[in-house]
Amino acid sequence: MGAPLRIAIAGLGTVGVGTVQLLQEHAQTIAMRCGRPVEVTAVSARDRCKNRGCDVSGAVWYDDPVAMAREAEADVIVELIGGSDGVARDMVAAALKAGRDVVTANKALLAIHGTELARAAEASNVHLTYEAAVAGGIPIVKALREGLGGNHIRRVYGILNGTCNYILTTMEDTGRDFDDVLEEAQELGYAEADPSFDVDGIDTGHKLALLTSMAFGCPVDFEAVSMEGIRHVTAMDIQHADELGYRIKLLGVAEETEHGILQRVHPCMVPKNGPIASVEGVFNAVVVEGDFVGRSKLEGRGAGAGPTASAVVADIMDLAAKRGAPTFGVPVDGLVERPTATIDTHVGAYYVRLMVLDRPGVFAEIAAALRDAQVSMESILQRGHDPGAVVTVVMTLHSTVEAATTRALERIGGIDAVVEPPCMIRIEDL
Amino acid sequence: MGAPLRIAIAGLGTVGVGTVQLLQEHAQTIAMRCGRPVEVTAVSARDRCKNRGCDVSGAVWYDDPVAMAREAEADVIVELIGGSDGVARDMVAAALKAGRDVVTANKALLAIHGTELARAAEASNVHLTYEAAVAGGIPIVKALREGLGGNHIRRVYGILNGTCNYILTTMEDTGRDFDDVLEEAQELGYAEADPSFDVDGIDTGHKLALLTSMAFGCPVDFEAVSMEGIRHVTAMDIQHADELGYRIKLLGVAEETEHGILQRVHPCMVPKNGPIASVEGVFNAVVVEGDFVGRSKLEGRGAGAGPTASAVVADIMDLAAKRGAPTFGVPVDGLVERPTATIDTHVGAYYVRLMVLDRPGVFAEIAAALRDAQVSMESILQRGHDPGAVVTVVMTLHSTVEAATTRALERIGGIDAVVEPPCMIRIEDL
Repeated sequence: MGAPLRIAIAGLGTVGVGTVQLLQEHAQTIAMRCGRPVEVTAVSARDRCKNRGCDVSGAVWYDDPVAMAREAEADVIVELIGGSDGVARDMVAAALKAGRDVVTANKALLAIHGTELARAAEASNVHLTYEAAVAGGIPIVKALREGLGGNHIRRVYGILNGTCNYILTTMEDTGRDFDDVLEEAQELGYAEADPSFDVDGIDTGHKLALLTSMAFGCPVDFEAVSMEGIRHVTAMDIQHADELGYRIKLLGVAEETEHGILQRVHPCMVPKNGPIASVEGVFNAVVVEGDFVGRSKLEGRGAGAGPTASAVVADIMDLAAKRGAPTFGVPVDGLVERPTATIDTHVGAYYVRLMVLDRPGVFAEIAAALRDAQVSMESILQRGHDPGAVVTVVMTLHSTVEAATTRALERIGGIDAVVEPPCMIRIEDL
Repeated sequence: MGAPLRIAIAGLGTVGVGTVQLLQEHAQTIAMRCGRPVEVTAVSARDRCKNRGCDVSGAVWYDDPVAMAREAEADVIVELIGGSDGVARDMVAAALKAGRDVVTANKALLAIHGTELARAAEASNVHLTYEAAVAGGIPIVKALREGLGGNHIRRVYGILNGTCNYILTTMEDTGRDFDDVLEEAQELGYAEADPSFDVDGIDTGHKLALLTSMAFGCPVDFEAVSMEGIRHVTAMDIQHADELGYRIKLLGVAEETEHGILQRVHPCMVPKNGPIASVEGVFNAVVVEGDFVGRSKLEGRGAGAGPTASAVVADIMDLAAKRGAPTFGVPVDGLVERPTATIDTHVGAYYVRLMVLDRPGVFAEIAAALRDAQVSMESILQRGHDPGAVVTVVMTLHSTVEAATTRALERIGGIDAVVEPPCMIRIEDL
């Protein structure tokens, strides 16, 4: 049995406590699997006196996580504070500079400063690992960097945010609308008081940016991610999706296109019997399409103390066993800038819902707008007939380049009888 | 860039050729990810003159794979010959003894001689890896040994044989019977001329034995696997399953029970909306239930040149990058013998189909047999009414211990009016 691997943990929220509990409960198995024990030698959190349900009395307490990262008697610094800047960034930078391996669950930090931090890790010849940052307990970082590492990846996509998936699943199950379900999710602790990171797609965007870098070997580029959240999805859209044979999911998709790498986050109608539609509630799933392996899907809990701790500990065990990989799969100097495709180059089918004054001639105006934008309609259906009142019109569009769809919808939105901005949801065979 | 990793490959069938092609096509990416190039320096196969569609002219040819394993200028020996004994076993043993890392896709070999070979690897301080041996391209070996390695695993189960899944899916889609679909699968190359390993559950048993060892940290024990194949499943059973809300899949299940570790392979009715039912055709899926991570599912192509090569190359890349793990997750001396539970201790629900002469009193005899064995019936349904002729009776039984079900079915099989042995299929909420 080798010398203990010494761990310093910053942040003792649910994930930090779960990590300590896992390391303690399974200490023997972990030591056996790694060839050496793992010991928590230092901790840092906001409130020293709080009772957290885990025993860290054997660890040295630091009020300042940055000081801990620099000075603690530890081989590995675990960052579970969160946030793309401030103390999390400072402590990770300090740890790497001090020559310590870093384990983090912080997607925002890596999505924004990942390349710079990976470079710092390489300069110190240490590792920066983040299995817990993407899709919770699902070992997708390891799969992309190692298990599927021989493949040329063409596309990676998935459900990366459990909060949105819970909200959409509940809307579907209950027929209730977004605001109502969000409020309940907040009460249940499934959504934050400020839900924006989740429901506006930003969290999914952070995770997607990391997957993109690993899948395509390019520097992390969060700025290039097109993001659209789920606030505009109504119970009515979910009902229409069901009738059309689809479910609505918030997807992150990264793919090689003829225009470059396209990273996009948006709600999407996916076929009910496809690999994504069956992913329910707080579960996450990631699909990887590789040239040799074909389509692989990994599914599991995307958040919560247990799954996230499982991923943090997997990283710690790799470090204990001296298994390492470059932060994004290849050394930073080997990451290749790729052309960036924008969402207006996306080609796909569309669902469009319009709220329209029921009067003669409106369909003709809509049809003319589509014709002029060279958009081909697959179907159009007015739901109900109530002259002079507002009715719902649902269209599906054949595969079209998004720029044309946008042009057509702008013009349609300007038609007098169209009383709300059109609601557009992409349809994909994923 | 480090010195090249030198590879010797034995067996140039579809997987061997796929491996060479992957290593050549993605040589640059692989070198970048591993920090060193990978070179095929030696090969061995049956026929030197065969045109295989891949260029191995730069490699030294060996007629004898055992000699190659011992003598070739190679760091890693890749065994793609197959078979639990004979030349595959000899060459792997020779390679380990000579201090070379071994990569193999051979589940039969490891299921039967795994512990002994793992010990030989440890004695020489080398690695024995086998990602391709279980579930093709799905990185499940890595997930169990590393990515989910911090968890206490309670159960691992899945669809591990693409041939059986293809046959069952096709029977379901077309309504055709087993023999007919098997013949077609053989013509299409999806099933072997001797299909026994696949359709009798042996191949699934081999793979399950490996998963069991990794999941529960016990020595591989293929002898303890209870195996039942799919030959007795009829189109009628698939139809009945559909009516009851189930699909029939051949599952391998390993679980901790109060009687010990139970390893079982058998066809199973699983709910249509559960995680297993949606796995179609040649796809495989493995579900891991861990105490911290919860339920995780990995799904992908379970066989074929590309997926298997993807897994073989993942192992090679790990060795190139000096990432290693003990063969079964912990060193052989750390594997703990666990009590073995037998299938008669299994507790679950059952579907039973009987072919019965339609005459008064038969139901009473059946009911008495169930009562005497303390088996509680959930439903019984005679399909059709044709006095004096043979009709189908379908029963479902409430959760029962298997020994009692077996006793009841033996007695029912002995009833005069029951003209065929009862067909029993387990029902599970997987």
